[in-house]
Amino acid sequence: MSETRDHATKKLMNSPEAIIPEMIEGMLSAHPDLLRLEGETGRAVVAVDGPRDGKVGIVVGGGSGHEPAFAGYVGRGLADAAAVGNVFASPSPEHIKEAAMAADGGAGVVFLYGNYTGDVLNFDMAAEECAEIGIDVRSVAVIDDVASAPPERAGERRGIAGDFFVFKVAGAAADMGLSLFEVEAAARRANAATLSMGVALSACSMPQTLKPNFEIGDDEMEIGMGLHGEPGMRRAKVDTADSVTDEMMEKILGEMPLAAGDEVAVLVNGLGSTGPMELYLVHRRVAQILAERQVTIHHSWVGEYCTSLEMAGASVTLMKLDTDLKRLLDHPCRTPALTVGAPPAPVAGATRTARDYAAAARAESVDRASLEAGGTVTPELFRAMMQAAGEAIAREKDHLSELDGVIGDGDHGVTMDIGWTAVRAELAAATPEDTISQTCTRAAKAFLDAVGASSGPLYATAFNTAGKAVADRLNLDAEATAAWVEGMLDGILSRGGAAPGDKTMIDAWKPAAEAARKAAKDGADALGVLQAAAEGAKAGAEATRDMESRRGRSKKLGTRSIGHVDPGAASTHVVLAAMTEALATGTA
Amino acid sequence: MSETRDHATKKLMNSPEAIIPEMIEGMLSAHPDLLRLEGETGRAVVAVDGPRDGKVGIVVGGGSGHEPAFAGYVGRGLADAAAVGNVFASPSPEHIKEAAMAADGGAGVVFLYGNYTGDVLNFDMAAEECAEIGIDVRSVAVIDDVASAPPERAGERRGIAGDFFVFKVAGAAADMGLSLFEVEAAARRANAATLSMGVALSACSMPQTLKPNFEIGDDEMEIGMGLHGEPGMRRAKVDTADSVTDEMMEKILGEMPLAAGDEVAVLVNGLGSTGPMELYLVHRRVAQILAERQVTIHHSWVGEYCTSLEMAGASVTLMKLDTDLKRLLDHPCRTPALTVGAPPAPVAGATRTARDYAAAARAESVDRASLEAGGTVTPELFRAMMQAAGEAIAREKDHLSELDGVIGDGDHGVTMDIGWTAVRAELAAATPEDTISQTCTRAAKAFLDAVGASSGPLYATAFNTAGKAVADRLNLDAEATAAWVEGMLDGILSRGGAAPGDKTMIDAWKPAAEAARKAAKDGADALGVLQAAAEGAKAGAEATRDMESRRGRSKKLGTRSIGHVDPGAASTHVVLAAMTEALATGTA
Repeated sequence: MSETRDHATKKLMNSPEAIIPEMIEGMLSAHPDLLRLEGETGRAVVAVDGPRDGKVGIVVGGGSGHEPAFAGYVGRGLADAAAVGNVFASPSPEHIKEAAMAADGGAGVVFLYGNYTGDVLNFDMAAEECAEIGIDVRSVAVIDDVASAPPERAGERRGIAGDFFVFKVAGAAADMGLSLFEVEAAARRANAATLSMGVALSACSMPQTLKPNFEIGDDEMEIGMGLHGEPGMRRAKVDTADSVTDEMMEKILGEMPLAAGDEVAVLVNGLGSTGPMELYLVHRRVAQILAERQVTIHHSWVGEYCTSLEMAGASVTLMKLDTDLKRLLDHPCRTPALTVGAPPAPVAGATRTARDYAAAARAESVDRASLEAGGTVTPELFRAMMQAAGEAIAREKDHLSELDGVIGDGDHGVTMDIGWTAVRAELAAATPEDTISQTCTRAAKAFLDAVGASSGPLYATAFNTAGKAVADRLNLDAEATAAWVEGMLDGILSRGGAAPGDKTMIDAWKPAAEAARKAAKDGADALGVLQAAAEGAKAGAEATRDMESRRGRSKKLGTRSIGHVDPGAASTHVVLAAMTEALATGTA
Repeated sequence: MSETRDHATKKLMNSPEAIIPEMIEGMLSAHPDLLRLEGETGRAVVAVDGPRDGKVGIVVGGGSGHEPAFAGYVGRGLADAAAVGNVFASPSPEHIKEAAMAADGGAGVVFLYGNYTGDVLNFDMAAEECAEIGIDVRSVAVIDDVASAPPERAGERRGIAGDFFVFKVAGAAADMGLSLFEVEAAARRANAATLSMGVALSACSMPQTLKPNFEIGDDEMEIGMGLHGEPGMRRAKVDTADSVTDEMMEKILGEMPLAAGDEVAVLVNGLGSTGPMELYLVHRRVAQILAERQVTIHHSWVGEYCTSLEMAGASVTLMKLDTDLKRLLDHPCRTPALTVGAPPAPVAGATRTARDYAAAARAESVDRASLEAGGTVTPELFRAMMQAAGEAIAREKDHLSELDGVIGDGDHGVTMDIGWTAVRAELAAATPEDTISQTCTRAAKAFLDAVGASSGPLYATAFNTAGKAVADRLNLDAEATAAWVEGMLDGILSRGGAAPGDKTMIDAWKPAAEAARKAAKDGADALGVLQAAAEGAKAGAEATRDMESRRGRSKKLGTRSIGHVDPGAASTHVVLAAMTEALATGTA
């Protein structure tokens, strides 16, 4: 029997829309002695007695659905604050920034999170915003899942249950009063010493859909599967606990040379519906294997520490210990999900000063008279062009989602429309005195706040960078229009980590920028430059049809992604074509 | 859509037979700093630093599948030992006795367990055995599930997640050095102050079958369902977390009058595959309801504390606090599943003396010359009659299981055969010098060790009581044969709690005993007496056809149990008829 029909999932919830705020409200009601909320978004969960003056702040975070990660690790001796995203979606830079401000004790802040594209983008974006208001941030994206990439590309690995050890070690280092540099180093050292591997026996379902997020046969398991249902190394018939554990340990020990006398910490983690009975069977085998090698287990944790909603399955994590890691692991902490040793008594005088970040806020006044006024694209016309781009995205929403349905999540049209709708509303309400650069900054913030997926920070950075590229202009001429398109490309390149040829929106923005620059050089006017950009984007998008995807979720399709246009490249053309048309109309 | 097809469950295990010993091995490998094993059965999990001289011992226990209950609560400040049963089956008296011996510090032991028939029988049986070797035992069977019986029959209620609070309070009382009487009183006080109610959204599956243990529609929930799939109060469409919580809280608060200013402890417990996200939604609503009544939450626990394998669902438990309960709840403890406060430092000199229970062992020598030798039933013939009874049960095994399949678990024939096979082996190996009374004692021990289900202690007590009733006899005459049958009935009545007319084996043993007494009075010989007993049992078993079941699992069928013979009554007739035939042959 190898049916793939999974059962409908039932959840105790009120509505998918309210589930995250209500979960946070529930956490605060259950742990008022440990947790409180700070900021205005309702997504920064902060330790009651964590942050204090002179201590390095620890901020953890990620999507929800992995409970007790991440807010369950907030408390004295571990994380000072967590930024809580939607289910399986990164928290926004605003959420993270609020968590950082709450954790800030004047000694810098370390961001710790699993290595996923959306999280990396948003935490990096937040780190930049923190730098602007005077908070020194270091980031460590946890990479521990040996199944997610080979050793030579370890930097691309996902973060799974290994988060637990990295958070614990860094939290202890900060609590002991180490410097920002030392806390970051401790986190990196823990990360380097930690490897994990998991196995999934069932799918899980998002609160919005209540449908399994992937298909798996009634007698199958997937070895190495990720925390959001990302593909693993192989699919097989369900095997014994011993065999499955053997396979996971072989992979981990293959990269972690352990000799007789070495010490490790062990985490056997349940993914959701696999309970302690089965987890203890796995630990039994792990302990046998380590005993054979005369490796000592310093301490074990067995339970649900980093879940995937109600997925069935488990993961094994080992951290190879040295004297320092052992001391940091044993350091006391007290959080909803983890208590180690005697919780530290409140330190006398270690209070936290309320900081005033308002003075550092972004809004800067601009002397319009000092700006270059040459060119046909006025700020007013530019805003009309942006409105037109948003309207075109709304029209093409379904088409873009269909394109994405073939090789991705099927939500690109919806996501872009959410972002652009926010941009349109923001610009419609903005003051007419805004310059083009200021309009771009507003658009960036609106897009980012509205879109949690990775296109949020990508477009936001694009708008910010393009705006800065024309910050000396009141109006745009041909040259400045080309600079704006180039700025869009530069922003995306700086944020994304993708390269040309990876089958992403870059493959439309790059030919667009090149065509725009050439047109400007050849003497075209602003309209001609933008028209060239739109045509370049069109050709570039069309060329993605022959490319194999190397980024994001469509990457797993490999050569099967060939033959389909990348939706991000397609939407780039939609935006530039609509802006061109609006410019033509406005200057006609 | 209201399909009832549940998905196949996949478990990480090696074999259903090995799952409990391997789970225990895994627990010990994961928590060597907290747990160790004592005794010979491998089912007594003991706290490394729990039991100590002069301290009241705390023994908890029950079936497996409820992890972290029960062994997860073993550790300093909580339970000293846990007796670990098979999945959803009580530990045997032997397991419990080993746990009690390990927990014994010379100041008595308190047994704490959920109120289920099998557990009550086995813990009571173990308590009697402990008394024989000088351990003073008090028992508290936890009753907290408001959905399992109305308030006027609160004594029949099941124990569910409320175990958690009762264990915690009693464990603290013992750790503080209170007396046996005081520790028992604290446990009863906690039990009286604690009420729970649960909701199930899915079934779970036993490792042996991997099939759902009950059917439930894809859009249904069962309000008030028990921890083993026992029926709840009503089945309904899945509702919102708020509505479900409202209903559970209404039922609990209906019996727990809380006024403004009162304090409670809250446990929101996940049954298996329902994770923290949903549990926090439930806690949110609990906190809202309590806030409306101006009731203060002293402390909350949200997570998996008493599960039902991978069942989806949750329960809410409230304990109304007074000064004493609050102090006991806050007392430090350190166990695999629960840490409160700073784990207590080892008490200097509070070591544990190894006790020598061997001297108190049961085997007593008998002066055969002093026994009444009149009668045709010699010890040798009696053993042959017991062998014949066992052989008859083996022949009727399938028939008995079929009878049980209609109104029970379908395992009565198998269970009886396991018990009688053990009896046959034990008696075959026994010394020929054994008296009939000693043969009965041997049979009792063999049956009990072999059978975990409630028929184990019932038959064991029957054999022991019947043996004692003829302890002054070498051979049995008519009078003594009647006394033996009466002894069987008395033993079952003393242990079982069932009454005549409840549709149990008592409805065969009672007419059997009455017929035997009458035959003896009427001048029949031993064979005539036993023949009368067999005929009485046959008529009695037949009469159970018209009875409605009022005990055990068939109770839930109500009037639907009418029309079917009770399998326990039927097997009584099988035993007595076979013994009669063997006696006829032996004396022919």
